[in-house]
Amino acid sequence: MDEKQIRVGVNGYGVIGKRVADAVTLQEDMTLVGVADVGFDWRVKVAVERGHPVYASAPERRGEMEAAGIGVTGTLADLLTEVDVIVDCTPKGIGAVNKAAYERAGVKAIFQGGESHELAGYSFVAQVNYPDAIGRQFTRVVSCNTTGMSRVLHALHRRGWIDRARVVVLRRGTDPWESHDTGMINTVIPETRVPSHQGPDANKVLPDLDITTMAAAGPFNLSHIHFAMVETTHPVSVAGVRDALFDEPRVALIRAADGLVALNSVVELMRDLDRPRGDMWEVAVWDDAIATDSREIYLTYQVHNEAIVVPESIDAIRALTGFADAVASIDATDSALGITSAFLPATDEPIVHLAGSDVDHPALAAVRARHAEFAEMGFKGAEEPSEEETD
Amino acid sequence: MDEKQIRVGVNGYGVIGKRVADAVTLQEDMTLVGVADVGFDWRVKVAVERGHPVYASAPERRGEMEAAGIGVTGTLADLLTEVDVIVDCTPKGIGAVNKAAYERAGVKAIFQGGESHELAGYSFVAQVNYPDAIGRQFTRVVSCNTTGMSRVLHALHRRGWIDRARVVVLRRGTDPWESHDTGMINTVIPETRVPSHQGPDANKVLPDLDITTMAAAGPFNLSHIHFAMVETTHPVSVAGVRDALFDEPRVALIRAADGLVALNSVVELMRDLDRPRGDMWEVAVWDDAIATDSREIYLTYQVHNEAIVVPESIDAIRALTGFADAVASIDATDSALGITSAFLPATDEPIVHLAGSDVDHPALAAVRARHAEFAEMGFKGAEEPSEEETD
Amino acid sequence: MDEKQIRVGVNGYGVIGKRVADAVTLQEDMTLVGVADVGFDWRVKVAVERGHPVYASAPERRGEMEAAGIGVTGTLADLLTEVDVIVDCTPKGIGAVNKAAYERAGVKAIFQGGESHELAGYSFVAQVNYPDAIGRQFTRVVSCNTTGMSRVLHALHRRGWIDRARVVVLRRGTDPWESHDTGMINTVIPETRVPSHQGPDANKVLPDLDITTMAAAGPFNLSHIHFAMVETTHPVSVAGVRDALFDEPRVALIRAADGLVALNSVVELMRDLDRPRGDMWEVAVWDDAIATDSREIYLTYQVHNEAIVVPESIDAIRALTGFADAVASIDATDSALGITSAFLPATDEPIVHLAGSDVDHPALAAVRARHAEFAEMGFKGAEEPSEEETD
Amino acid sequence: MDEKQIRVGVNGYGVIGKRVADAVTLQEDMTLVGVADVGFDWRVKVAVERGHPVYASAPERRGEMEAAGIGVTGTLADLLTEVDVIVDCTPKGIGAVNKAAYERAGVKAIFQGGESHELAGYSFVAQVNYPDAIGRQFTRVVSCNTTGMSRVLHALHRRGWIDRARVVVLRRGTDPWESHDTGMINTVIPETRVPSHQGPDANKVLPDLDITTMAAAGPFNLSHIHFAMVETTHPVSVAGVRDALFDEPRVALIRAADGLVALNSVVELMRDLDRPRGDMWEVAVWDDAIATDSREIYLTYQVHNEAIVVPESIDAIRALTGFADAVASIDATDSALGITSAFLPATDEPIVHLAGSDVDHPALAAVRARHAEFAEMGFKGAEEPSEEETD
Repeated sequence: MDEKQIRVGVNGYGVIGKRVADAVTLQEDMTLVGVADVGFDWRVKVAVERGHPVYASAPERRGEMEAAGIGVTGTLADLLTEVDVIVDCTPKGIGAVNKAAYERAGVKAIFQGGESHELAGYSFVAQVNYPDAIGRQFTRVVSCNTTGMSRVLHALHRRGWIDRARVVVLRRGTDPWESHDTGMINTVIPETRVPSHQGPDANKVLPDLDITTMAAAGPFNLSHIHFAMVETTHPVSVAGVRDALFDEPRVALIRAADGLVALNSVVELMRDLDRPRGDMWEVAVWDDAIATDSREIYLTYQVHNEAIVVPESIDAIRALTGFADAVASIDATDSALGITSAFLPATDEPIVHLAGSDVDHPALAAVRARHAEFAEMGFKGAEEPSEEETD
Repeated sequence: MDEKQIRVGVNGYGVIGKRVADAVTLQEDMTLVGVADVGFDWRVKVAVERGHPVYASAPERRGEMEAAGIGVTGTLADLLTEVDVIVDCTPKGIGAVNKAAYERAGVKAIFQGGESHELAGYSFVAQVNYPDAIGRQFTRVVSCNTTGMSRVLHALHRRGWIDRARVVVLRRGTDPWESHDTGMINTVIPETRVPSHQGPDANKVLPDLDITTMAAAGPFNLSHIHFAMVETTHPVSVAGVRDALFDEPRVALIRAADGLVALNSVVELMRDLDRPRGDMWEVAVWDDAIATDSREIYLTYQVHNEAIVVPESIDAIRALTGFADAVASIDATDSALGITSAFLPATDEPIVHLAGSDVDHPALAAVRARHAEFAEMGFKGAEEPSEEETD
Repeated sequence: MDEKQIRVGVNGYGVIGKRVADAVTLQEDMTLVGVADVGFDWRVKVAVERGHPVYASAPERRGEMEAAGIGVTGTLADLLTEVDVIVDCTPKGIGAVNKAAYERAGVKAIFQGGESHELAGYSFVAQVNYPDAIGRQFTRVVSCNTTGMSRVLHALHRRGWIDRARVVVLRRGTDPWESHDTGMINTVIPETRVPSHQGPDANKVLPDLDITTMAAAGPFNLSHIHFAMVETTHPVSVAGVRDALFDEPRVALIRAADGLVALNSVVELMRDLDRPRGDMWEVAVWDDAIATDSREIYLTYQVHNEAIVVPESIDAIRALTGFADAVASIDATDSALGITSAFLPATDEPIVHLAGSDVDHPALAAVRARHAEFAEMGFKGAEEPSEEETD
Repeated sequence: MDEKQIRVGVNGYGVIGKRVADAVTLQEDMTLVGVADVGFDWRVKVAVERGHPVYASAPERRGEMEAAGIGVTGTLADLLTEVDVIVDCTPKGIGAVNKAAYERAGVKAIFQGGESHELAGYSFVAQVNYPDAIGRQFTRVVSCNTTGMSRVLHALHRRGWIDRARVVVLRRGTDPWESHDTGMINTVIPETRVPSHQGPDANKVLPDLDITTMAAAGPFNLSHIHFAMVETTHPVSVAGVRDALFDEPRVALIRAADGLVALNSVVELMRDLDRPRGDMWEVAVWDDAIATDSREIYLTYQVHNEAIVVPESIDAIRALTGFADAVASIDATDSALGITSAFLPATDEPIVHLAGSDVDHPALAAVRARHAEFAEMGFKGAEEPSEEETD
């Protein structure tokens, strides 16, 4: 193993762990030593197919794993002797149990958003607060919702634009892989703790942001979606917001005018772009749903909860092991994974100018009309007023 | 027919029309002359089963209706000669076409929220602006979302508490009866027109309310759900909000602490209370999700879109025909339909006091613990932080 | 209490229990003494609103129930001293635990389909095997799927038509009241035990029926749906099948030609017919999906799992207490509940004759065309061949 | 362009077309000349990102496409002059319109299952009837359901085992990319044409197969699922069925015992295996749901409707252009795409032997118990009998 390589282990080969493991293997400065888990079903068998050495998180499960045909390299304790950093991707609350083992082994550890801020002592979003994580033994990457929200609001906040932010978070009901077991049918569950925890959690990474959140979960599994209403310190133009978002790493604009009108169409775009597992590591903000008035900015964005914390975990590995250049780390991660700020760069230009364009290509009117139709799709219910009234 | 009876016709026997027809038959001062439609499927056949005289909205469809076994009393033109008021419940945009016929026949007419404010010249929510509708030829009851929002915000606004209201509206994807034909699967469709039309629509009935709305639709058909963040003119207590809502007609409190944790459980309560079609004419506000801070009130409420405008339509009938007492009309409608401000009055008391109670009944701690568990149900996903952090 | 009344208690006030309790109160020869449960949430509070005396199924829960504001009349032991029959509607497996208490109290008891045949020693479907249940201490009404299947197949089997039956059972994912907690999203779960248990379970009531079933569950909560392929002992006509089904109690025909094209539209019809909770106690068989060929009968039918076993439970009460006339019991139950063999009797006639009619009413062709369109609804996907080929 | 290359065009860049285009580019003996479409939204823009030359299917749309930023190489007529074979993947019914253009251009053409058998004069499933397609001008690959069914039944039929097959087809409600627009919510739509068209369609490729099908569609978009009950000419063992399926190209076994218990978990496996778009070109048959008795074979299998006809289209290209070796074509296609008969080859062995194994590895009992639990997952509803009874 190359001396200059960071040796990484992943504990918990689930929704996040399997993605982190793959992402580690794509980094030039990291080596995946192995993945640890307690299971012996298809999920762990995929680790074998991918060639990852498999370790038993719980020694007593090793026999069952081997009986199921999984070659087991060792136990978690063995893995910890081989790594510089362990990324703990175990279910919520288990990371807290594991911390003592990581301390004993003297390895650095990254926890996920299901664990408390206090457990790790630091909450991490790469583009917001990488520098203060450098050299720590522990950090926590914040939850998917908080990560997405922090990226988008950071774009505005670091410009001093935010007076107060209000966000309604609509969560996916469960993840695709377990949708047969833990879902819901034909309902919405509002969170009765108001304000919801996402606001205080965002304050762990953006301490001086004035933010309040409400939350609910619905019967879909593709992604979260957020509705942000951001009071501004002064009037901001739509173009200004767009520029601020474009400048922000790991944020990409999408357009209903392109037919990307709903969570499913954006996910289909990811499939078509040949993303592994259809992952979208970026927060996708609807360009044509950006609105501003004299007091406020309005944003609608999609957070792919399966994928969004993966690049954060990679950057956190670098930060803990002392790599000092946040921008270089983010660039390396993004380049290795294929993270972009424009999903359709080859054809982006005309649409960017669509709304206010004075180009008079003879066919542009038709394009605009069809695009306007896309943007309204699904909002023709009888209970809503006719167009005459609202125009 | 009693001279003192208001003679009412319903044009369009769909989701709203069938409910308005039933509600009219329950009023002591109204007679349902008949219902008009263009269909000849099970929906219109139900009108026959219920004993409503059926008219052909389009004369050319009469033969088809009769061929399908439906006894047809006459055409819409015939119906219009027999009524004082027609309630137009036709699909969005058709009411605008029908208006000329109503004018020719000299009948008063009520349009639904799918038609424009300008068509009727007045937008109506009984408890907000009944008086100015008295004696008009036309009015429009606003859409289900706007009706629900207007009731809830009116409770605060008439007390001078609202500085600015922000509401995120999450709409049901389609109605149950047509869920095989017009739904969506596993996605959410954000409205890209931001702010969405509900805010301006609410201003038709509450002109001086400062309000902005964002909207989306999701893959469920039971009800809408709203998340309101209301900036206040001064600090308001949760108890104060609760009292204001309790005082407001057609608003009822529900509690996650009672196990009513999601749209489906509230709908099941309506079924259990033997409501016709499981209808909830009231806006249901989650009592234990009411929150306030020094600047703001937070509310989560459920709007049963199939039913909520039905009592409005009944009151509008009285207003148009000159009945001058808004309170008496609302009371008569509510009494006839069974509208309440408390769904579980026999057992309400203990829970009302639950949150801040100093009663020390030995079993109360267990009840509170179980109730707290209900209130958190569905919010245990691995991506959310452990409890330690948020407490 | 009237000497001639059967005194009934219900243990477990859930999906089935609350319906059985209501049905008991509607019978002229029965008195509902009370309902027992362990809960203290909205579900049990509904029992209070309905005026049912409430008992604590577990004495240790009594304090919690009272602390929640529920007046508790006594414990389950107290209830058992007051009743002739207890209908056990507790969750699967709990009935087996309760049996000893019923035996000690010397009360007759009815168990639900979640308990084993052996527990009760008898499995009951009223129209199939009422006589042999007369005077027993215990019986079990079979599960919703088995009840529906037994009724439909009994119509054919008692005529000696069935050589062998194959049924694919597509189950609803969970019940509406708990759809926030126990559902699934965007998937189907096949049962891997093949043949599935429904076939052997049907043999408990129809021992000499040659039947095999396969099963799966899907992401919907309204009803089950079955697809039956029945090999016949000789060719049977569609008209013959229709007559046999029409003759069978608690089976009703519905028609896609009436626009009743899917589970949701049939449920909406129940709502429109003012059924309590929208219940359909009948098995609904699609009339225009009945097909036969020289060897086989094909049937598609909907089983409303929340409601279908309710009339069975009522008849079982009479059977256990010695009421000897099965037909009179079924009639009494059906009359009290409003069970019918035709949901739209006032307009039924023309459609019955629609398929093979030689009436040439000028509008009938249009009706037929529209009906044909309904019948094809939802089956226009691009992957299916164009009509030319299949005609 | 290499002389030996087959020059291929794709008309219609939708669900099937985009996959066929990608698959063509992976074949060593084919060149993708370009794709034609009428759209200018994100879907066609993806073709630009992938570097496919884009043609305007309708010349009058060319301006709109260019106005949207899409570089247009030419019209469909231009494309037809450059290709040997055009794969028509346009929406149902459009292929019939296009045929004349293909005839005029003298190009060979492949139509999809939405077009009629008569249009093409031949219906194609590679492993069943490749030889008779060699050199034809036109063929049609049959629909996804028919393709899946033909592969599975062919495995049995070519061994002379099938006396009569009955299949219930449960279709996905719509495709993921359009699930916001054309779905359904909380319902199932039975097909009222019984038998359904899939049986006769299968007879286009397997003329002497005695088969009857029934069909329905449900509220999910991941895949179809079939339940097959196959009467056999003589008793067949489960092992025999398994061997026959293993021998059949493009059929792969999956196991609930591996935790692959539902449509969603199999799709997640495809994502984890890094399949493009998560595609499963194989029919996945549940190994542990294979059952047989003295008269019949029972099979449950998943058909990924987005992907399954893609390899068929590739083989059809070769057949039309005169490549004579069916086995070599299938092998070339499968090798290029990564089609397999075992998704988890590295760990397959122990599970294959699990059911009847007499190995007594000390941990195997635990593995079996956990696997049994998976296999029962989702089937614990209260209405089903307890285990005692069914064992």
